[in-house]
Amino acid sequence: MQTLIQKIRNSIILTSEAEEYIYSISKEKKVSKGEILIRQGQMVNKTFFVTQGSLRSFCVDKEGKEHTLQFAVTDWWISDFIAIYNHEPASLTVQSITDSVVIEFNFQKLAQIYLKFPEFELFQRKNLERHVVSLHKRILNQLQLSALERYNLFLEQYPNIEQHVPNYHIASYLGITQQSLSRVRAEKAKM
Amino acid sequence: MQTLIQKIRNSIILTSEAEEYIYSISKEKKVSKGEILIRQGQMVNKTFFVTQGSLRSFCVDKEGKEHTLQFAVTDWWISDFIAIYNHEPASLTVQSITDSVVIEFNFQKLAQIYLKFPEFELFQRKNLERHVVSLHKRILNQLQLSALERYNLFLEQYPNIEQHVPNYHIASYLGITQQSLSRVRAEKAKM
Repeated sequence: MQTLIQKIRNSIILTSEAEEYIYSISKEKKVSKGEILIRQGQMVNKTFFVTQGSLRSFCVDKEGKEHTLQFAVTDWWISDFIAIYNHEPASLTVQSITDSVVIEFNFQKLAQIYLKFPEFELFQRKNLERHVVSLHKRILNQLQLSALERYNLFLEQYPNIEQHVPNYHIASYLGITQQSLSRVRAEKAKM
Repeated sequence: MQTLIQKIRNSIILTSEAEEYIYSISKEKKVSKGEILIRQGQMVNKTFFVTQGSLRSFCVDKEGKEHTLQFAVTDWWISDFIAIYNHEPASLTVQSITDSVVIEFNFQKLAQIYLKFPEFELFQRKNLERHVVSLHKRILNQLQLSALERYNLFLEQYPNIEQHVPNYHIASYLGITQQSLSRVRAEKAKM
């Protein structure tokens, strides 16, 4: 929890009342490798801040194929934001990749923080701005980079994930088949 | 300009001081078809709200191939947000697709609005939340849908754009070749 409190203090002045409120609406939760926190098709009212380990959000298409939207490591938020903001059932599953520790928030209570402590608007705007930038980059990279270039960026962005996840998670994040991922790795090994 | 003022009023109470400030930091601008508002490689300090017509943001890769990040129609914002938030040169070009009318804002002055009129934090948070949802959907669609399904969604989302833009703009947004786009259209015509 101290990681999150520090992260908030880095961008706004956190009063003791606001800190108390954050503690009152959250709980630290240990999750085991493979545990599911949000399940595709169900209603969502939780969002998670990762303090240890790593998680993944993905959807399963009509043919049963998985597609990874996001990996979340220490200091990242993860949930199904489409479901939360649009008030619709989850189109994503959120699963722990390793034994992890997360701070779980009830989303409705978290949303009240802006009314009670308006300084959190600034904190959240900055978070969302950074998130928009990373999503724009992801889309541009997907459109213009080769599979090898995307794989290299993935290794840079998530240096500790590869050892924990099966190949099809990485392939499904890069938008390529497992066969292509093997080719890309062979290509990289030769360089 | 009235479109934007109304859009703001739909989500927050707009004081006459704040309205005056918005007028003071913006100007309405007619742009001709093909005109470039932001050029890849240059510094960016402007953001645009579209009141008429349509624009496009795209990047050109090492091989000279264009990749379309976004189309913007009436009521949408467009700029190079990666450049603005990261204080780096534009990785995108923003170009008018049709004769259009935009409201041009100096980004630094626009950013001061949160200090002068903190109620705009809520307005912007809601905008950013909606934008994040649409980007998550775009990434998931890119990963899991067929080219035909993506093309159908494009026609739904931008019903009036197709008549104005050459095929390679649409193909470069969908992440497919022009040949694939022709195949997709033929497939659709047969349905």
